[in-house]
Amino acid sequence: MGKYEKIIELARRRGFFWPSAEIYGGVRGFIDFGPLGCLLKRNIIEKWRKFFVYPHQDFIVEIETPIIMPAKVFEASGHVEHFTDYIVECLKCGRKFRADHLIEEQTGLSGLEKYSERELTEIIRKYGVKCPECGGELSKVRKFNLLFKTVIGPYGGNIGYARPETAQGMFISFKRVYEVVRRKLPLGIAQVGKVLRNEISPRQGPIRLREFTIMEIELFFDPTNPKCSLIEEVKEDVLRILPAERIVKGLKEPMELTVEEYLERKIISNEWLAYFMTVGQRFIESLGIPREKQLFIEKLPEERAHYAAQTFDQTVHVDRWGWIEVAGHAYRTDYDLKRHMKFSGEDLRAFEPYPKPKVYRRKTIRLNYRRIGPKFRGRIKELEELIKNLSGEEIESLIEKVEKEGKVKVGEFILTKEDFTIIVEEHVESGRRFIPHVSEPSYGVERVLYVTLEYAYTEKEGRIVLKLPPDIAPIKVAVFPLLSREPYVSKAKEIYRMIVSENILCLYDDAGSIGKRYARADEIGIPLAITIDAETFEDNTVTLRDRDTWHQVRVPITQLTNIIKDYISLKITFKDLEKKYLRVK
Amino acid sequence: MGKYEKIIELARRRGFFWPSAEIYGGVRGFIDFGPLGCLLKRNIIEKWRKFFVYPHQDFIVEIETPIIMPAKVFEASGHVEHFTDYIVECLKCGRKFRADHLIEEQTGLSGLEKYSERELTEIIRKYGVKCPECGGELSKVRKFNLLFKTVIGPYGGNIGYARPETAQGMFISFKRVYEVVRRKLPLGIAQVGKVLRNEISPRQGPIRLREFTIMEIELFFDPTNPKCSLIEEVKEDVLRILPAERIVKGLKEPMELTVEEYLERKIISNEWLAYFMTVGQRFIESLGIPREKQLFIEKLPEERAHYAAQTFDQTVHVDRWGWIEVAGHAYRTDYDLKRHMKFSGEDLRAFEPYPKPKVYRRKTIRLNYRRIGPKFRGRIKELEELIKNLSGEEIESLIEKVEKEGKVKVGEFILTKEDFTIIVEEHVESGRRFIPHVSEPSYGVERVLYVTLEYAYTEKEGRIVLKLPPDIAPIKVAVFPLLSREPYVSKAKEIYRMIVSENILCLYDDAGSIGKRYARADEIGIPLAITIDAETFEDNTVTLRDRDTWHQVRVPITQLTNIIKDYISLKITFKDLEKKYLRVK
Repeated sequence: MGKYEKIIELARRRGFFWPSAEIYGGVRGFIDFGPLGCLLKRNIIEKWRKFFVYPHQDFIVEIETPIIMPAKVFEASGHVEHFTDYIVECLKCGRKFRADHLIEEQTGLSGLEKYSERELTEIIRKYGVKCPECGGELSKVRKFNLLFKTVIGPYGGNIGYARPETAQGMFISFKRVYEVVRRKLPLGIAQVGKVLRNEISPRQGPIRLREFTIMEIELFFDPTNPKCSLIEEVKEDVLRILPAERIVKGLKEPMELTVEEYLERKIISNEWLAYFMTVGQRFIESLGIPREKQLFIEKLPEERAHYAAQTFDQTVHVDRWGWIEVAGHAYRTDYDLKRHMKFSGEDLRAFEPYPKPKVYRRKTIRLNYRRIGPKFRGRIKELEELIKNLSGEEIESLIEKVEKEGKVKVGEFILTKEDFTIIVEEHVESGRRFIPHVSEPSYGVERVLYVTLEYAYTEKEGRIVLKLPPDIAPIKVAVFPLLSREPYVSKAKEIYRMIVSENILCLYDDAGSIGKRYARADEIGIPLAITIDAETFEDNTVTLRDRDTWHQVRVPITQLTNIIKDYISLKITFKDLEKKYLRVK
Repeated sequence: MGKYEKIIELARRRGFFWPSAEIYGGVRGFIDFGPLGCLLKRNIIEKWRKFFVYPHQDFIVEIETPIIMPAKVFEASGHVEHFTDYIVECLKCGRKFRADHLIEEQTGLSGLEKYSERELTEIIRKYGVKCPECGGELSKVRKFNLLFKTVIGPYGGNIGYARPETAQGMFISFKRVYEVVRRKLPLGIAQVGKVLRNEISPRQGPIRLREFTIMEIELFFDPTNPKCSLIEEVKEDVLRILPAERIVKGLKEPMELTVEEYLERKIISNEWLAYFMTVGQRFIESLGIPREKQLFIEKLPEERAHYAAQTFDQTVHVDRWGWIEVAGHAYRTDYDLKRHMKFSGEDLRAFEPYPKPKVYRRKTIRLNYRRIGPKFRGRIKELEELIKNLSGEEIESLIEKVEKEGKVKVGEFILTKEDFTIIVEEHVESGRRFIPHVSEPSYGVERVLYVTLEYAYTEKEGRIVLKLPPDIAPIKVAVFPLLSREPYVSKAKEIYRMIVSENILCLYDDAGSIGKRYARADEIGIPLAITIDAETFEDNTVTLRDRDTWHQVRVPITQLTNIIKDYISLKITFKDLEKKYLRVK
C-alpha cells in the first residue's frame, strides 16, 4: 500500500475525511471533514493567518464575501470566457473525460496546455486515444466552462455563479475596503473561504475537489513604487525555484538562490511576489514539510491563467504524484481592477496625495463682445465654436502670439489684443490617481492538509504515529487512567475537566490496555498523553508522554495546563520538559 | 435615524459589512464582511464553540460537509417538496413578491402560514392587494422553491442543490461519524458553515440574506433514553417562553419558569431541547443581550418546518422589527434519518449492546422424508411450502399439539410425531437497533452579529461607543503616541509590535488629536487603548484607557501583554485594574 492509500485509510477510519454522500454512492470531487479533519483544517487556516495576516495587520485585512456572485462579475473577470477545460465524450458509452488528462494517460505526452480544441482532436485521432472505460471512439474536443451556474432570485434571467476563487470578492470591494483603511497602500485584502470548480472528472481524493477552501491575499500596490518594505527580513532566505527559462530548455534541476539574487536577476518579477513566496516556504515548512521537499515551479506563458503576468506554483513532493501544487503565487498586474472599472463604470483607482498639492496656472480668453459684435456680425457663433475647441496649449500660443504681434488668426478671423480679455485660472492637483497592481499568494487548504498528513505519517514498531506539529494537532492531549477503575477513573476525569475548561481539545479514554490507548492516540497525532497512576495519589503528579519519542516525565498536576499551553503554542519542547522534570523509565 | 439605520451607517463606514457587489449596483440578500465584521463574525463563532462545543467535547464533535450536495439528499430530506415560499407576480410590471409578506404589509393580517396558494389568492382578491411598485393587478399565488439549483459535472442530468441548512450533512454522514466515535450515544454533530436560500425578495440587510452562515448541532439520542445528563446544571435557569398554548389563546405575555418546571409541565418536549435552549440563552446573554430582551416563541404546528415535532424560535428584541429570530431549537425526531434510510437503502440505525447478550431458543422442525415420502407421494412440495410459511409461534404450537395429541393437521395433511424431527436453535441477540432521535439548536451567525451590534451600540457625549464584550471585539487594543512625533512614535510602534507578536489584534494610530483617536477607537469597540506619554520615558509605564468608562490607569509596559490577554479572555475587569494600578485623573 502506498502512502496515499495509507492516509486515505487512516483518514476514513479515524475521521479526518471521507467521500461525501457515501450513503448515496458518493459524489466525485466532494469530501466531508470528520471531527479530526475539521479541527486540523481549522488549525492550518489559523496558522496561515499567523504567517500571512496577523504579523502584517497594519496593512493586511481579512474580509469575507459571498460564494455566489452575479454573472457580471465573472464576465468582467474573464472567467465566463476563459475558465474552461477541454472535454471529450465517448461516442459509444457517453462518458465524458478531461481531454488533456486522457491524452496524457494514454500517450505520455505532456505540456498540452498550448493546444487548441482542434489540435487536441487531431492528437486523439493520430495516437488512437480511446475511451478508457469501453474502448469506444471519442468525439471532437470542446471547451467546458468550470463555473457552477445558478439563478439568483425568482427571475430566470438573473444568472449567478459560484466563485472559483475568492479573489474577485476582493477586487469588486477594493474601493470600499480602501476607503475603510483610510486610503493606504500597500493594502492586502485576505480571504479564507469556499470556492467551487466544476471539474470534469475529478479522481484524486482531497487533491482535486469540486468544492474546497482557499486562503488568499490580494496585495494591492502602487506600480510606480513596487517596493516591499519587509523584503529585508527575507532577502537571505534561499528558495528552490525551477524558472520558466530552465523549463523551456528541458532542464529539471531547480535553482537555489537567495531572494535577493532572484530579484537582482529578475527571475521573480516583483518584491511582493518574492516576499510572499518566502513567507509561504516558511509556512509550509512549519507544517512539517522540509524545504528540500518544496519547489517553486514557474508557469510557462501558455500555462498561466488569463490574468497573470508571472506565476509560480508552490509545490510539495508527494509519494504518489510527485510535485503537486499547494499554492499559486501570481502577479496579476492591474488586469482585474481594469476589467471591473470597464464593466462597472466605477472609478477603482487609488489616490496618492502629493506632499504639496501641485498648482497649475492656466490661461483662457473671454471674447470682448462689444468689439467683436460689430466686427464679425452674424459669424459670432462660428468664432465661439472655434475658440471652444482650442486646447490649453493652443490658447497659450494664441495669447503669446497676440502679445508679440498685436494680432492673431483664428480660422478665418483675425483678432487683435482688444478683442478679448485674458483670464488666469488656478488649478490645484492634490494627488495622483492610478490603478494599483496586485500580487497574489493563494493556498488550497485541502491540499495543504493532505501534504501535512503525508509528512506527518510515520510508522514505528508496526504502529502508525502521526507526527503533526503540536500547534496544528487536532487533539492536544489525552488523559488515561492507568487502570479502568476507581480511584483512577475519577481522578482522570477530574484532570480531563480541568483541561477542557481551558478550551483545550482533550481526549479521555479508559477502554482497553494502556498500550492500546497510547497507540490510538499516536495514530491521530495527539502530542501529549497524561496517565494517572498509583503515584498520582501519593504526590499529585502524573506522567506526561511524548508522542514522537515515547519518552515520559512526571509533572505536578498544578503545572499541567500551563505546560500543555506552552507546548502546543510551541513555546517549549519535550526536551525542555525532560530537563526540568523527572524522566520516567 | 433609528438604531438600525445608525448601525448600517456605522457598519458601512467603518467596515463591518455592506451590500455585496456595490460597484455592479448590488445584489439583494448578499453582504460583504469588511475587516472588522470578518473578525467580529469569527469571534462570535468561536464564542459559540465555547458554549456549545468545547465543554461538551466528550460527546459533541464538529464536522464540515459540502455546500453543494446531490439532488437525492434534498429529495430525501423533503426540501425539494417543502422548502418553498409563496410567490406572486405583478401582471403589469412583472415584479415578483413574497405573497405572505405583501398581504401582511397591505392588510395587517398575520399568521398566514396556514393558508394554501388558493386561499392566499382569494385573500389578495378580497382585500384588493396590489403591486406595491406600480399598483398593478397580481397573478395567482404559486409555490417557489428556495433551493439554489446547479449541475454537478459535465452531465446535464446531475442536479445539485446548495444546502439551505448544514443539518443534512450531519444526517447523511451520521453512520460514518457514529463509527468514528466508537458508536456512542448521545452524539452531537456540530457544523458551522455557509448555507444558501434563494429568498424571493429579501429587503432587511443582514437580517434576511440569501447566503449566510449557520452554527448548528444535531444531537442524536436514544428515544427510549432521552435523559440529558447535563440537565442538572441548568435546571434552575429561568427561561422566558411564549408557548403555543398561549399563542393560540391570543396571549402575548411570556411565561417565566425554570427549566425544571417547563419539563415537568411538558411545555418543552425533551431534555436535550431544554438543555440547549438554556445554553443558548446564556450564549446570547454573553454577547451583551440581557435575558429580558430574549424570548423563546414556540412555533404553531402550521408554522413548523416539515421535519419538526416541536420548535422554539429564540428571539431577541430589536429596535426596528421587534422580536427577531436568532436561532431555532427544533425537535426533529427520527424524521431525517428515517427518510435517508428509505431513500438510500442504507441501515442508519444505532446499536445499543445489551449488558448481557440475549439468548433465544427457537424450535423448528425438519421433515422425515423416509416416512412422509411414501405417505404423501406427489404432494411433498405442497407440504414443504405450507411448513415454510409457518411463523415461529405457529411452529411452537404445532410441536406442542403433536406432543400432546400425537398428531397435528397442517393444511390438509395429517402429521404424526414420527413424520418429523424437532430441532432446537439458539439465537444470540447482542443488542438493540434503533433510529436515534434528534434535537437541534441552529443559530444564524449574521443575525446574532446584528443583534450584538445593536445592543453594543451606545452614544456618549455625541459620540458612538460600541460596547462589545472584550472577547468578541474585533480589535482588542489601540496604541497611541500622545504626540505624533519622536520619541513617542517609535516607542508606540515598539509596543504595537510587541502586542502583534502575540497574535493579538491591535491598532496603531498617530493621526489627529488624541481625542479624535480615542473616538475612532470607541466607535469600533476597541476595549483598551494604550497611550505613550512623557511619563513613559521616565518610568516605563503607559496609560491604559477603558472604552466604556473612559477611566485610565497607569501600568508598567512589562505587564501589558498579560493584562491584555487576561482582559480579553474575561479573566479580569477594568475594575480589577483600577484596584491594582494607579488611576489617572
